[in-house]
Amino acid sequence: MRFIHTADWHLGRIFHGVHLTDDQAYVLEQFIGLVHDARPDAVLIAGDIYDRSVPPHEAVQLLDEVLYRIVMDCRVPVLIIAGNHDSARRLGFGHRLLARQGLHITSQPDNDLAPVVIEDCHGPVYFCPVPYVDPPVVRDCLGVQDARGHDSAMAVLVDYWQARVPGGARKVALAHAFVAGGEGSESERPLSIGGADKVQVAHFRAFNYTALGHLHKAQPAGEEQIRYAGSLMKYSFSEAEHKKSVTLVEMDARGVVTREEIALCPRRDVRRLDGFLRDLLVGPPPGVSREDYIMVTLRDSGAILDAMGKLREVYPNVLHIERPHLNCGGDLRGPGGDHRRLGELDLFASFFQQVAGEELTSEQQRVIAGIVEQIYRQDYRPEQGGGAARLTEQRETGVLA
Amino acid sequence: MRFIHTADWHLGRIFHGVHLTDDQAYVLEQFIGLVHDARPDAVLIAGDIYDRSVPPHEAVQLLDEVLYRIVMDCRVPVLIIAGNHDSARRLGFGHRLLARQGLHITSQPDNDLAPVVIEDCHGPVYFCPVPYVDPPVVRDCLGVQDARGHDSAMAVLVDYWQARVPGGARKVALAHAFVAGGEGSESERPLSIGGADKVQVAHFRAFNYTALGHLHKAQPAGEEQIRYAGSLMKYSFSEAEHKKSVTLVEMDARGVVTREEIALCPRRDVRRLDGFLRDLLVGPPPGVSREDYIMVTLRDSGAILDAMGKLREVYPNVLHIERPHLNCGGDLRGPGGDHRRLGELDLFASFFQQVAGEELTSEQQRVIAGIVEQIYRQDYRPEQGGGAARLTEQRETGVLA
Repeated sequence: MRFIHTADWHLGRIFHGVHLTDDQAYVLEQFIGLVHDARPDAVLIAGDIYDRSVPPHEAVQLLDEVLYRIVMDCRVPVLIIAGNHDSARRLGFGHRLLARQGLHITSQPDNDLAPVVIEDCHGPVYFCPVPYVDPPVVRDCLGVQDARGHDSAMAVLVDYWQARVPGGARKVALAHAFVAGGEGSESERPLSIGGADKVQVAHFRAFNYTALGHLHKAQPAGEEQIRYAGSLMKYSFSEAEHKKSVTLVEMDARGVVTREEIALCPRRDVRRLDGFLRDLLVGPPPGVSREDYIMVTLRDSGAILDAMGKLREVYPNVLHIERPHLNCGGDLRGPGGDHRRLGELDLFASFFQQVAGEELTSEQQRVIAGIVEQIYRQDYRPEQGGGAARLTEQRETGVLA
Repeated sequence: MRFIHTADWHLGRIFHGVHLTDDQAYVLEQFIGLVHDARPDAVLIAGDIYDRSVPPHEAVQLLDEVLYRIVMDCRVPVLIIAGNHDSARRLGFGHRLLARQGLHITSQPDNDLAPVVIEDCHGPVYFCPVPYVDPPVVRDCLGVQDARGHDSAMAVLVDYWQARVPGGARKVALAHAFVAGGEGSESERPLSIGGADKVQVAHFRAFNYTALGHLHKAQPAGEEQIRYAGSLMKYSFSEAEHKKSVTLVEMDARGVVTREEIALCPRRDVRRLDGFLRDLLVGPPPGVSREDYIMVTLRDSGAILDAMGKLREVYPNVLHIERPHLNCGGDLRGPGGDHRRLGELDLFASFFQQVAGEELTSEQQRVIAGIVEQIYRQDYRPEQGGGAARLTEQRETGVLA
């Protein structure tokens, strides 16, 4: 038995204002190629197919196309569970009809739920889908009162499956949950507050493999056969160092699994750059793409006119700039004393001290004094890049450090 | 060949603040019973399945359930086209897989579209779905430049089908369009402004039957075999006199059709009542439901305290009250002269003249004078139904006409 485990596609995601559907289509094209070449017995998608309960219609159309090609062109059954980002009832439309074509979408638990059974030459493997559901929904759907939190709800769901799979049979769970001890990223939406969203890894020990979704970093959840496949793409800059992949799992006659992570190559990587503007403007080393989605940490301490514009001339997809110097400098309560009693130069020096955390040098003071003088002479034209542009220019040419 | 033609379900509709999903489920239960009993070869739903592009998830779940029961339990294929209220891409999710189970959803035209062919003992019948699409989408999808308006776009789509159905074969069109000459209702959303949304009936003459959607009144569109089935329910008070039904069509070996309208009985009818409050408060005659959705036209000319509250004690689902007297009376520019110079009684008489279009009688003047006196004596308690309630009471008991 061979299957591919993936999760957290988040179709329709918007990343710092950029609609990622085209990037997702690019990666999914590789994924379809992989399914075509690897000829697995099944594809498992462990929740968060969409990024939100009402996804953009481009995302709906992309999913329709991808699933059709896997199920009909490659003839590989697909098992999907809903994640916390999906709308269970929207995702579940037509599920009973679609299941007869090999597309098994499980978005809500109920007492009619049966495992998806796929056979290989050694016999059946029972796939047990555990969609993400809030504990009260578990109580309603299965009529049990003791599913108070996420962990006890998971216990109920796993018991449900244990009762429906023959003893000794090979079985695989799909679940969308935060297994205690897992490492999160910035792009996951918490399931509840205060750590109450965690479930114990022990629930899954009865399964030969557990295909997890929710955490965006590919990782084992305590044990090797209980794993997160990780997200389709990097969905936050905190994931810049992740290797995004899908997991190809081989299960033998006894249910023992071996696995392989197969990397997915994005159209544009998500990277972080850190340095001074003049160094960053040199551009990337040969062979490194300028087109990646980039977050820049700028080390420069002083004013920079249109840093985003300058960086985008070199890296067109800079999406975010962080300036630690501007955040750490001084308090923001205003200059000491009564600012109405300070002259322009003292007032600016106080402001500079506040945001940059250092004193104006005498050279800097001379430049500012010149600008103030220009303003009084009325030949200062900010809309044409007057004093401020000159200040930046002087900084970049070394007059200002 | 026998098929049922229905349209304009508008699942998820909100009617004067009331979510109609439960009422729609009630009527659809009858519809499923009809399908079960009539054993048609197909069910045709001619667009506006949902009321809006992102329907509430209760509506999604209801449609899922209804279609499953028709397709799987009754084993009757269903053909659906998108209407102008539906989101083509959302409604179309999974359509190629669902079609293999007998659920044929056509939401966008494209060059791969094939007719749905259903056989009877006389041979095949070709069903040609024409979903609602804006003319620019027709141009894009089919690569034709001359689909400038709705009528020319329909010509292109009909030509498309004519080219794909063998000459002499029996054929049925499903279309969601405003056929010129049809009678509209208040609950249809115009397709475009200024009458440019109309298409000519001539487009459909080549078909043995045309199952139309869009207009909410069941009616022929110029010719008997080109018909609107009408909406599932009454979706505006302008439809109070409609008979809502579905059309059961029988087609013989030559393609000649006979038909029968089969009424659907709503959980609550939509009705208009017209009269004086005291007459309406008597309640309905025996055998007429108090639970219907009701719009009341109140003929009373004077002030009535909480007319809605009083009417709902008798008819709990009064949704709208119209008071023609309050709309037609005088101009609203204020009393003649300077109102600051008028006494309370004259000011009220002027106001009454304005809104009711008639003078206070001497008896009415006496009542108002009494209320004004109470107010000055400070024993007027409006929150306990003081003067105004007494005024209403006197009106209802006949002291005030």
